[in-house]
Amino acid sequence: MAACLDEKFESLESILAEHLPADVLAKVNLSLRGPGSIDLELPAKAKETAKKNNFDLQGYEIKVGQKEQSRPSRLVRIGAIQNAIQKPTTASVQEQRDAIHERIDQMLAVAHECQVNVVCMQEAWTMPFAFCTREKYPWVEFAETAYDGPTTKFLAERAKKYNMVIVNPILERDEEHGDVLWNTAVIISNHGNVIGITRKNHIPRVGDFNESTYYMEGNTGHKVFETDFGRIAVNICYGRHHPQNWLMYGVNGAEIVFNPSATVGALSEPLWSIEARNAAIANSYFAVGINRVGTETFPNDFTSGDGKPAHKSFGHFYGSSYIAAPDGSRTPGLSRVRDGLLVAECDLNLCRQMKDKWGFRMTQRLDLYADSFARAIHPDYKMDIIKDPNSKQ
Amino acid sequence: MAACLDEKFESLESILAEHLPADVLAKVNLSLRGPGSIDLELPAKAKETAKKNNFDLQGYEIKVGQKEQSRPSRLVRIGAIQNAIQKPTTASVQEQRDAIHERIDQMLAVAHECQVNVVCMQEAWTMPFAFCTREKYPWVEFAETAYDGPTTKFLAERAKKYNMVIVNPILERDEEHGDVLWNTAVIISNHGNVIGITRKNHIPRVGDFNESTYYMEGNTGHKVFETDFGRIAVNICYGRHHPQNWLMYGVNGAEIVFNPSATVGALSEPLWSIEARNAAIANSYFAVGINRVGTETFPNDFTSGDGKPAHKSFGHFYGSSYIAAPDGSRTPGLSRVRDGLLVAECDLNLCRQMKDKWGFRMTQRLDLYADSFARAIHPDYKMDIIKDPNSKQ
Repeated sequence: MAACLDEKFESLESILAEHLPADVLAKVNLSLRGPGSIDLELPAKAKETAKKNNFDLQGYEIKVGQKEQSRPSRLVRIGAIQNAIQKPTTASVQEQRDAIHERIDQMLAVAHECQVNVVCMQEAWTMPFAFCTREKYPWVEFAETAYDGPTTKFLAERAKKYNMVIVNPILERDEEHGDVLWNTAVIISNHGNVIGITRKNHIPRVGDFNESTYYMEGNTGHKVFETDFGRIAVNICYGRHHPQNWLMYGVNGAEIVFNPSATVGALSEPLWSIEARNAAIANSYFAVGINRVGTETFPNDFTSGDGKPAHKSFGHFYGSSYIAAPDGSRTPGLSRVRDGLLVAECDLNLCRQMKDKWGFRMTQRLDLYADSFARAIHPDYKMDIIKDPNSKQ
Repeated sequence: MAACLDEKFESLESILAEHLPADVLAKVNLSLRGPGSIDLELPAKAKETAKKNNFDLQGYEIKVGQKEQSRPSRLVRIGAIQNAIQKPTTASVQEQRDAIHERIDQMLAVAHECQVNVVCMQEAWTMPFAFCTREKYPWVEFAETAYDGPTTKFLAERAKKYNMVIVNPILERDEEHGDVLWNTAVIISNHGNVIGITRKNHIPRVGDFNESTYYMEGNTGHKVFETDFGRIAVNICYGRHHPQNWLMYGVNGAEIVFNPSATVGALSEPLWSIEARNAAIANSYFAVGINRVGTETFPNDFTSGDGKPAHKSFGHFYGSSYIAAPDGSRTPGLSRVRDGLLVAECDLNLCRQMKDKWGFRMTQRLDLYADSFARAIHPDYKMDIIKDPNSKQ
């Protein structure tokens, strides 16, 4: 069996739909995705525009939960955008960024037509994911100041115009603190102001993801942003591998946690469908995994620490963005290969309903773990291991 | 779409194998289960015995990882047993337990023929999962002392005879501490001695799982047991919903963590394939989810807190036991409806290799979370929420 899927495999969903009879497909989908997700009818105009502009548009309703006597439903339409870069990496920084801005402008207009309330782009969406090169220039020139950089300004205009909260994950230049770089998400309100920023808490040192060459572990903790459309948080990319990171956003009251990412097939695809969904379950919130698509080729050779010859590309970003609900249901994924906008209508009341049903917060025993973690970090910590006294080893 | 799958749906794997052409099936399986799991040839005699005794036998090799210069491979065969109760719940406690012992005796013999080194049964395996009734008698009479109860004695004999570590999850009667009950796993060495015990850390108060009526949160922390066949730990049932629980077994050095469970379709099936697998990924160890099968009918009516009429059964335990590897691969599941023994040959060296590859332990930031959890448990904790100053709300 091949070690990983190639670009010809468009999506699990499309392959199953092609080969399975309708009644069998319904059961298989129930097994794979849980009971909650059904098709959402989107405006014909939005569908036409998406088709014309050559990106996928998929809509779902998360139909679980129940009416409450004391709170009206809080229906929110969540949007997730995945895209390839638009220009070769040899184009100027300005040209590359402008072309991606233009692409996202098309997609945000369609998100607005679909009445999306909160939307998030992929990690470092204004640039190729150039950290594999370990070169600093020109790539660090994609970095911008969080509050008033050109990308934040660009999105703030759309946020206000469309009455849409926009999560803007960029490479940040922190001019106030020694010009250092961060991997940051800027939370832009539907009123057009920046509510705040949140930084990537866990930085990979794995394969081509040489990101610690560029920026350090985030120093903004686990902030949650209260918007007109619910309490949102952002767990950037590699942070999705750390359940304790997801957990703290839940402790701080998040109802939707976005996971803007950039990850490739050979490395992480068996993990992708598991991690954000597990977070939604364990923390009784909606989790949104977003991954870019396409293969990015860089001007100079680089190596990948895997003994293979130097090369100019590090593989296929497999997209597959999806939204998971607190009851364990999930939407189908976007394509593995094409740009796309995913829209899901969710009732945020489901978060508290699932807390009440499952009681994970009530039974969480954070006191036990605060103590256990505090002991475990001591350099002289001894693991709690009981050896078999009769062992021959 | 139906809210949950019924007993006619034997398994996702069997349905896909029935309907998909071989080349498509291979890709779908790669998408669903990752690259690591291939069929393991088991002895013909074992297969015959399993067939004769009417239980499934499935074997896999987890073929990932690499040769190291400094350590030989540490191949271990892990076994997972799922089973239905064998007698009606109206039979005497002694009869019910004896019949289950007899059933497991058959399955352990086959496990031995398959060269299983470490095996685990499902949660409270000697009894029906009677906690839904909220009745104390006769159900609490299934409880036994951990170190010298009849079930531990029964298994200790087999453990020594078969040179097999056996994890024995029972309802424990703690005579030394006020005769209280615990939900406990007894770790029996391949030399026939009890290495120690470990108790269920998180107790559900959900639906029919009225378990806090019977026993409290465990007081044994996150012990790991060093055996001739690797370092093992046990995360019992509802503890699988708590990633911080899985995490602490990893911190204490576990290489295989068993999750003996009892759970039913309408409640948890969308969660089942996610949680143990996420734990294997996040903690770089093997995780083994085990769930009972069958529908258990009790003599007296009980209610389920769901507004429905009183009834005598609380649904279908959906089996689907599986083993997940630290690289995110997983084996196919056992059936949703039949007794079964799952065997997987694994190289425990893969645990450290995945720690080296992904660096999740290195990047875990336990200091941050020790501090965050310690603050979060204070009654006057204020969540770290930034409100949009322009919000109308």
